[in-house]
Amino acid sequence: MKPAVGQLRPDGSLRHLLTLEGLGRERIERLLEQAQRYVCEIGGVAPRRSTLAGVTVANLFTEPSTRTRVSFELAAKRLGAEVVNLEVQLSSRVKGESMLDTVYTLEALHVDVFVIRDAEAGVPGLVAAHVDPHVSVLSAGEGSVEHPTQGLLDALTIAQSKGRFDDLVVAIVGDIRHSRVARSAWHALAALGVKELRIVAPEGLMARPGEFPGCRRIDRLDEGVRDADVIMMLRIQKERMSHTSLPDSDRYFAEFGLDPRRLALARPDAIVMHPQPMNRGIEIASDVADGPQSVIRTQVRNGVAVRMAVLESVIAGRSAAS
Amino acid sequence: MKPAVGQLRPDGSLRHLLTLEGLGRERIERLLEQAQRYVCEIGGVAPRRSTLAGVTVANLFTEPSTRTRVSFELAAKRLGAEVVNLEVQLSSRVKGESMLDTVYTLEALHVDVFVIRDAEAGVPGLVAAHVDPHVSVLSAGEGSVEHPTQGLLDALTIAQSKGRFDDLVVAIVGDIRHSRVARSAWHALAALGVKELRIVAPEGLMARPGEFPGCRRIDRLDEGVRDADVIMMLRIQKERMSHTSLPDSDRYFAEFGLDPRRLALARPDAIVMHPQPMNRGIEIASDVADGPQSVIRTQVRNGVAVRMAVLESVIAGRSAAS
Amino acid sequence: MKPAVGQLRPDGSLRHLLTLEGLGRERIERLLEQAQRYVCEIGGVAPRRSTLAGVTVANLFTEPSTRTRVSFELAAKRLGAEVVNLEVQLSSRVKGESMLDTVYTLEALHVDVFVIRDAEAGVPGLVAAHVDPHVSVLSAGEGSVEHPTQGLLDALTIAQSKGRFDDLVVAIVGDIRHSRVARSAWHALAALGVKELRIVAPEGLMARPGEFPGCRRIDRLDEGVRDADVIMMLRIQKERMSHTSLPDSDRYFAEFGLDPRRLALARPDAIVMHPQPMNRGIEIASDVADGPQSVIRTQVRNGVAVRMAVLESVIAGRSAAS
Repeated sequence: MKPAVGQLRPDGSLRHLLTLEGLGRERIERLLEQAQRYVCEIGGVAPRRSTLAGVTVANLFTEPSTRTRVSFELAAKRLGAEVVNLEVQLSSRVKGESMLDTVYTLEALHVDVFVIRDAEAGVPGLVAAHVDPHVSVLSAGEGSVEHPTQGLLDALTIAQSKGRFDDLVVAIVGDIRHSRVARSAWHALAALGVKELRIVAPEGLMARPGEFPGCRRIDRLDEGVRDADVIMMLRIQKERMSHTSLPDSDRYFAEFGLDPRRLALARPDAIVMHPQPMNRGIEIASDVADGPQSVIRTQVRNGVAVRMAVLESVIAGRSAAS
Repeated sequence: MKPAVGQLRPDGSLRHLLTLEGLGRERIERLLEQAQRYVCEIGGVAPRRSTLAGVTVANLFTEPSTRTRVSFELAAKRLGAEVVNLEVQLSSRVKGESMLDTVYTLEALHVDVFVIRDAEAGVPGLVAAHVDPHVSVLSAGEGSVEHPTQGLLDALTIAQSKGRFDDLVVAIVGDIRHSRVARSAWHALAALGVKELRIVAPEGLMARPGEFPGCRRIDRLDEGVRDADVIMMLRIQKERMSHTSLPDSDRYFAEFGLDPRRLALARPDAIVMHPQPMNRGIEIASDVADGPQSVIRTQVRNGVAVRMAVLESVIAGRSAAS
Repeated sequence: MKPAVGQLRPDGSLRHLLTLEGLGRERIERLLEQAQRYVCEIGGVAPRRSTLAGVTVANLFTEPSTRTRVSFELAAKRLGAEVVNLEVQLSSRVKGESMLDTVYTLEALHVDVFVIRDAEAGVPGLVAAHVDPHVSVLSAGEGSVEHPTQGLLDALTIAQSKGRFDDLVVAIVGDIRHSRVARSAWHALAALGVKELRIVAPEGLMARPGEFPGCRRIDRLDEGVRDADVIMMLRIQKERMSHTSLPDSDRYFAEFGLDPRRLALARPDAIVMHPQPMNRGIEIASDVADGPQSVIRTQVRNGVAVRMAVLESVIAGRSAAS
């Protein structure tokens, strides 16, 4: 993967957000601070601004993801932007030039920000490389490559709970190999300087050799969560269990599901995270998902705040640059 | 069915609207009065308010229903709310905990009101039982159980035409057994004290024994509509005709279709209602649907007004309670 | 086809826009002037007005068309209207009365403008003939009959590039027979008085005898584009190639694709247009589509402006008439 230089404007401001790799500690911290200002307790009145008045945001989702789409949609609307949702059918679309023609069309309709979700790698970067200078592209999840706003919201959630990064042990658990969530969390947390980052997975779902440099690889859950400050569980796709020696849900849960017994191996104040949607009873027990150490709903709440901060940031930088 | 106590806040204000059962005459009358203020002649300028500014409404429809979704969407937007539409695919969703995880996610995105439509019974109540105290749940149609805003708009339509309830004879005609519309109308009209409520259906579509207590059961349409003030026709699902001795559309129409001859058996100033969509030529003749006694379009118009009143009511009660 | 008289109010103002036929040079020119005021360079700030505040626009699309739907949606929103999108499934819908019942329902929900796209001919006209006097119907593409806002945006694009119509040679190239784009362009450009209008197509895709009176029919592309000022390429549906002697993409491109060699036969300042989506390498070479003579993105940009002008025009006329 290449560093994030293609994401910045000549003046150094953030233009696109496709990856957290290479974004740098300072910029990530600034985004988290900006997001923190938009954090609102569940049940509170969602904050609204008009910093995106006159801006049009297009949600271009080729993979169904109601949650992430709504999170971006509400973030944009609460900043005063116009939002259009487009569900592009993968089957009726030819990649490459045809994809770009759709993008050029939307650009000519005065879309300022593209939020793109795609099951295949490469699409957000392809679009970012071709749009006009005033347009920004935000990845809302790209294949198994990156999900940068998820990485930011995970970092923000940890910052809120722990108040620091430098002495933390973070365990990311599950289907590391195919997880964009794991990759974005790793980029964010490595930049923010956590003490130890563990990737915990059964053989077959572990990262390939050479990936995740600097992380500690662990193939047993007990060892993986022991004394951890943060446990980030990943969603397991049922069809991928066959890649492991844990071919059904019960066996997967027995070996890699986070239950209260295993959570007790972590530090007493450890927090439990999950990007959702959860497979309860497969990768995580309901007792844990709904228990006092879970910050899973806090992650969702932080997601809107992070997306507001990112949208505001790319638009503010555009105005300054022009 | 249980009474509506679970729908109220401790201070007695309306929090959810899942059923009209047990809601009580006074509260229903107040909602109708409130709705009446939002009634606008077709062709007039739709009234707008900002009483829902800062409020986010999520339309969560698992059954396709363009009309009802748009009615709720416009009601919410015309009160100044932010609206997001989610089409949850029944096939890709597991009921229960997974459904609730979606709800918790939306709650964490600061959704204040869930409008829920589901083909199966139990979902709106399940959601209402689990959301945070500041969140309201409105049923937009629940299996064959209830469709409370439809019941209110039907009552409002009758009130506008007749100016009273206490000496009215109301005939509900058609597939009573599977009809949420019939159940909600019955709850509303029983509370409002109509003189006689008839349920009129062929055998096989009649309510089960013990259901609709206090209603008069009639199995012939001529007798059912005779001297009625109000005739509410229900939609018949074609596949359900096989449950009766009227196995095809022609025979159904001949026996249970409302045509001008039968309408003439009712009181001369009787009104004809239908929740739509209509099967013209099956349960109702076009002459009747489009004739001078039809108030079918008025029902639709009243639908937005009723939904505005309900939305405003649950939000106003929340502010007062907090 | 009948003239546009059914589109006007008794006072002569524009009520519906279903066809450009019979609309007259003066009215078309006025719409283009009005649209020009909303034209905004790509990268500029999209203009916004509040002339449609309080107006509700329903996009009723029975054919998928993300681009045109978003163009109308943004045009309406940027004028301050409330917009609802309805995707009506052709399979689940019965034409005629059932279609009209949906329309009456939306009318009762205070929809003021219907934007209708349908793969079959007749639907926009049927709706226009039945709605209440305060409601307007805009065609967003009707079978192979008309696509009037496309015709207007094409005319506007030519006006911007050429500054005149009266000495222009315009070649419309491709599947003339099935093209609503060609029909609307022909009506607009004939009214605006271009010098020569050529329809250029292989046998099998040429207009039927008697259609397109006044146009010059040409069955070879070289001859068709020679000395042309404007070349409008049409999209070819792959399944329609079998109607011609050019049964595959390569042969079609060899005979009827616009490549740089053929473009060189036109006037040196000729412009190239395409309604999109393009089949690159089939009806048009990428070199040409992305080349300096292409105004394809300008067409899209003009599309929003034209739709804003049309929306504003039908609503302004309504207020004046009432």
